Amino acid sequence: MAENKRRDFLKKAGAVTAAAAVATTIGAPSVVKAEKTYQWKMVTTWPPHFPVLGEGADKLAEMITRMSGGRLQVQVYGGGELVPALQSFDAVSQGIVEMGHGAAYYWAGKSPAAQFFAAVPFGMNAQGMNAWIYTGGGMQLWEEVYAPFNLKPMPAGNTGVQMGGWFNREIKTIEDFKGLKMRIPGLGGKVLAKAGGTAVLSAGGEIYTNLERGVIDATEWVGPYNDYKMGFYKVAKYYYYPGWHEPGTVLETFVNKKAFEALPKDLQEIVTTAAMASNLWMLCESETKNNFYLDKMVKEEGVQLKMFPPDVIRKLRAYSTEVLDEIAAKDPLSKKVYESFRKFQKQHQAWGEISESAYAGLNKV
Amino acid sequence: MAENKRRDFLKKAGAVTAAAAVATTIGAPSVVKAEKTYQWKMVTTWPPHFPVLGEGADKLAEMITRMSGGRLQVQVYGGGELVPALQSFDAVSQGIVEMGHGAAYYWAGKSPAAQFFAAVPFGMNAQGMNAWIYTGGGMQLWEEVYAPFNLKPMPAGNTGVQMGGWFNREIKTIEDFKGLKMRIPGLGGKVLAKAGGTAVLSAGGEIYTNLERGVIDATEWVGPYNDYKMGFYKVAKYYYYPGWHEPGTVLETFVNKKAFEALPKDLQEIVTTAAMASNLWMLCESETKNNFYLDKMVKEEGVQLKMFPPDVIRKLRAYSTEVLDEIAAKDPLSKKVYESFRKFQKQHQAWGEISESAYAGLNKV
Repeated sequence: MAENKRRDFLKKAGAVTAAAAVATTIGAPSVVKAEKTYQWKMVTTWPPHFPVLGEGADKLAEMITRMSGGRLQVQVYGGGELVPALQSFDAVSQGIVEMGHGAAYYWAGKSPAAQFFAAVPFGMNAQGMNAWIYTGGGMQLWEEVYAPFNLKPMPAGNTGVQMGGWFNREIKTIEDFKGLKMRIPGLGGKVLAKAGGTAVLSAGGEIYTNLERGVIDATEWVGPYNDYKMGFYKVAKYYYYPGWHEPGTVLETFVNKKAFEALPKDLQEIVTTAAMASNLWMLCESETKNNFYLDKMVKEEGVQLKMFPPDVIRKLRAYSTEVLDEIAAKDPLSKKVYESFRKFQKQHQAWGEISESAYAGLNKV
Repeated sequence: MAENKRRDFLKKAGAVTAAAAVATTIGAPSVVKAEKTYQWKMVTTWPPHFPVLGEGADKLAEMITRMSGGRLQVQVYGGGELVPALQSFDAVSQGIVEMGHGAAYYWAGKSPAAQFFAAVPFGMNAQGMNAWIYTGGGMQLWEEVYAPFNLKPMPAGNTGVQMGGWFNREIKTIEDFKGLKMRIPGLGGKVLAKAGGTAVLSAGGEIYTNLERGVIDATEWVGPYNDYKMGFYKVAKYYYYPGWHEPGTVLETFVNKKAFEALPKDLQEIVTTAAMASNLWMLCESETKNNFYLDKMVKEEGVQLKMFPPDVIRKLRAYSTEVLDEIAAKDPLSKKVYESFRKFQKQHQAWGEISESAYAGLNKV
């Protein structure tokens, strides 16, 4: 399959050009323009058609292709089909392909500031992230972070509040993280390390077996739907919430800047609008499916839901602040982004307390 | 200005047709198609360019026009510019214009089931409404409700959790609603009536004066940003939260079905995707602006924020259930929609408690 796709890739290389001579009827404005069709490849960090995340990438490509009436055709490649998952950023940056789909925290090694555009421990939820990025100044900062890599970023999905992870021992105090080997990437992993645990990196396909064999003691993944598909409920006893480390993870698409700028304005608008619509679709899909699978795991599979105790949360939050402050202290761009993020979060939280939280609280009245 | 627009409207009437003969280069697929450009009018229930809501309609029209490269040009008309605000539904239904922008509860008189697609007292927030509509079966039901009117509905905005309203006396018990004359439309108004109050309808431009002169005792509107612009803080003392009656109001666009079906597939896709993107944009804009204006009113204008007391909430909720049950009992389509809504809400609430609410609650830990 990967081989077939590579052949396909060679066959389709280069944009197909069609010159359009538009004849006009009487009274209509005279339009004569050269039309060109574009064949783009989108590499992703997800396995092909991976539930929600990979499906979001498929959806985005489909929207672009359909809205452009086939003038911009986007073909999606799962991680490893064309380039390895975590080389997606480089492949688009170098112009090997035009477009990518992933999550910005994968590129912390390129620019530490990237992480703020994916998930920040004790940061904002989906609604806050979207407001900050689209209308609160976040987008301009994100563009600044990706500009040196010749990339144009756009939000293209959100998982909503994730779960805290699967554990085989109860977390009663912060001491219970000492010596704990947990699969947890990004900033969350750094926080775990401060608590005395070991953040283990393992590819999606290996987590289940590692957890079963005791190579790792715990893992986080996404939310009930994705976690159910991975089968973790069969090998771990406790399912903790909430996902303090990923409260509203933003998925992204990134486009090679030259490829983007080479598009006519209408196709540019199609790409950015499709990304925005696919962003909303993904959150809806997660929210809808999570309802169902959480229920299923609790009722049919006997999963034990546990909330992290308050004192554990307080400690994790203090460590998170340390981690974020350290990143900001080392990198001026991270500092700039963090300050914007923090300021927006503070305001959003104040408003959230009398809107979303107050409203949700009525359930308990 | 309304006159100018009417002349403009006559001038632009009828679709401009351009036949495009597309010459192909060697190797490119042969594409020969007739191209047509479309001039659409969008009538809205909002004053022209009204903050957030009207701006959302402008944004939607702009996205469609830009993505289509001008092949589908949408011109927006504020309420009263082409047809009176609340005749938008009829105008699009009858094919006088192609497209409208409003909120589904305005059309309760056409079909009571419409209200479930705008705001339900003690119903779902923005995230829940979007999930239900896009991926939880709501969309199909909404299409069923609007089908007899030759309309295709789509979500095209959300206000987020609204505020509970402006009052000149404190609400300490449910008795305080007795004899209260409040501007509150839709289902919320019916709930108020059950509590012994009088729901007064008044056009946006009259509310301030009515409140100042004591013609009404209270009013709800939207959220801090829109409410600030209306100046209510100058004539009312108490600003109550949360907006139990409109916890995540969906704004809509509705398209004349025949006009929609006459579009080529790519333009159809452009309309639906633009609506989805504009939906997200509006919520972001509200969330971002509400932060700022709430702060401003509390700190600079001395607004007194008050939360409805628990016992008042319990009574309002009981009345809301009565109102909804009565609607469902009288109209089979409302019953069908309400059942879908209620089922989804129950699941979304269960998931929300361990995701959004649990996460928001960490702030208090």
